[in-house]
Amino acid sequence: MSSRRRMLRSLFVVAIVLGFAGRGSAADPLPSWTDGPTKKAITDFVTRVTTKDGKDFVPPADRVAVFDNDGTLWSEQPIYFQVAFALDRVKALAPKHPEWKDREPFKAVLAGDLRAALAGGQKAVAEIMLATHAGMTTDEFDQVVREWVKTARHPKFDRPYTDLVYQPMLEVLGYLRASGFKTYIVSGGGIEFMRVFAEQVYGVPPEQVVGSSGKLKYELRDGRPTLVKLPEIAFIDDGPGKPAGIMEHIGRRPVMAFGNSDGDFQMLQWTTAGQGARFGLIVHHTDAERAWAYDRTSHVGKLDKALDAAPKTGWTVVSMKTDWKAIYPFQK
Amino acid sequence: MSSRRRMLRSLFVVAIVLGFAGRGSAADPLPSWTDGPTKKAITDFVTRVTTKDGKDFVPPADRVAVFDNDGTLWSEQPIYFQVAFALDRVKALAPKHPEWKDREPFKAVLAGDLRAALAGGQKAVAEIMLATHAGMTTDEFDQVVREWVKTARHPKFDRPYTDLVYQPMLEVLGYLRASGFKTYIVSGGGIEFMRVFAEQVYGVPPEQVVGSSGKLKYELRDGRPTLVKLPEIAFIDDGPGKPAGIMEHIGRRPVMAFGNSDGDFQMLQWTTAGQGARFGLIVHHTDAERAWAYDRTSHVGKLDKALDAAPKTGWTVVSMKTDWKAIYPFQK
Repeated sequence: MSSRRRMLRSLFVVAIVLGFAGRGSAADPLPSWTDGPTKKAITDFVTRVTTKDGKDFVPPADRVAVFDNDGTLWSEQPIYFQVAFALDRVKALAPKHPEWKDREPFKAVLAGDLRAALAGGQKAVAEIMLATHAGMTTDEFDQVVREWVKTARHPKFDRPYTDLVYQPMLEVLGYLRASGFKTYIVSGGGIEFMRVFAEQVYGVPPEQVVGSSGKLKYELRDGRPTLVKLPEIAFIDDGPGKPAGIMEHIGRRPVMAFGNSDGDFQMLQWTTAGQGARFGLIVHHTDAERAWAYDRTSHVGKLDKALDAAPKTGWTVVSMKTDWKAIYPFQK
Repeated sequence: MSSRRRMLRSLFVVAIVLGFAGRGSAADPLPSWTDGPTKKAITDFVTRVTTKDGKDFVPPADRVAVFDNDGTLWSEQPIYFQVAFALDRVKALAPKHPEWKDREPFKAVLAGDLRAALAGGQKAVAEIMLATHAGMTTDEFDQVVREWVKTARHPKFDRPYTDLVYQPMLEVLGYLRASGFKTYIVSGGGIEFMRVFAEQVYGVPPEQVVGSSGKLKYELRDGRPTLVKLPEIAFIDDGPGKPAGIMEHIGRRPVMAFGNSDGDFQMLQWTTAGQGARFGLIVHHTDAERAWAYDRTSHVGKLDKALDAAPKTGWTVVSMKTDWKAIYPFQK
């Protein structure tokens, strides 16, 4: 760095430290949130745990916030986006698998009959996931997902799936990081799938993504070390798996947890049962107009038990319809 | 912050930015390393990857360094320290397990006959590990390890086991962190065992510890959420497991890897096969006087295949006897 640039940078640093550039701190960190009790619950909590000498102060190293992904940070309708990816992969891989023409659930997927394909329930979905997520190296999988994220379009909005992230939650992620929190994704989604876009879309680096995973096999291919994805599940990061995944990856109990479904129940419970100040939040899908409305009987993101528990546990419930001024960045 | 303190802090920041406080950078970051090619290999590499506009520059987010623990960051003789912990636990738990009096390998442990206890090989060790590491909550296990670390004494040095960390490696950890690296432990040891002391002893926080683990079960006990350690292995972070553990936890290929045994072979191989500048280092136990000397035929920390590979792969080999001025902090 030249001494002139150094000097300029130092003046900039001084300006920040002295607060000349500090007007921004008075700016609203959550502009897409309606002013009201929900937004206030978030900002009040963050103020409490970051106020030095306050009784609820949490040291920066312990400021861990965990976020579910599907339905909490981005949409999950009409089907989980990773399932949409898998269905696209079935079509792309079909020429290499002539046997799929006569075998369910692949036959139905190739015929474009989603309902028939998913009629086999979790077993059918698992079969599709393993067939499309295994048998290649982690580098190859990364490439395939990267390409899909760039080219695939969401059926309702005709936009890349990564456009369907929630603007208000992006603001929460940024606000928490600016408040000294480490933000983690803790999702039932595949860990390697999410890592492809989590850093760019959410600002969450690979090492802060926790998810479901398959077994990996270390192998030399043409003399080059690779990790091959095996068609075997290693860990399901959902429901009671979420506290276990948090312990395995983070090793600390979070201070804040954000979810939207019964799959987040134990994560919310584990987080908010900790000593000291804790915060749990549920995103309730109430906006049929700008997005979708669903809860107790939905085939994805079923929210029933956790919704009943919220009043007793003190979890904050977000109504997307009334609490969020915009759902997606492109609706701002 | 008062405006006076703000001003002082800002001047301090300016001083750092302008380099007035930069004399410290001329100080030797590795004072316990003998000046010579080994030490130079480390400092030259770090200089290369941190020199902006240099052809080997690595952005801070990608500066990941992984360290094996047993035999690389602390000693592993006469037996792995976690095995010593497990043997102590067998004795402590014996009153609750009267059946152990007649059952191997417990009978031999209780009789103080280590050789007979370990005669059953890996199966016997696994049985001892599961019996002493499972059946309790993660919080209870944390307490038990914490107490052991405080009270147990190493048989040769009559000091806490955590005194037997390698002073030169503590310096490498600090030097790398000061150079913008994130330092991770990637060890065959138990992840929850190491986390108890890793932050205090190595400055490595829980979320940067990767290790072997057992399955965890989420459970309410007296209405309180807990994670119970099951007697089932979830993941063995050794040999080919190390690259898999790195991928699962970190999601990036490391730039530097430090090990001491064939259990680190694949981690070293995986790391140094990456594109761009990479660094691998093996700690060779050559100092029978201040510590221990062992390699190709050792029952712990066997170093054979990796030692043969080092000249071809460009891995740096440390001779503890000649490269390290001190082994332990108490020998400084």
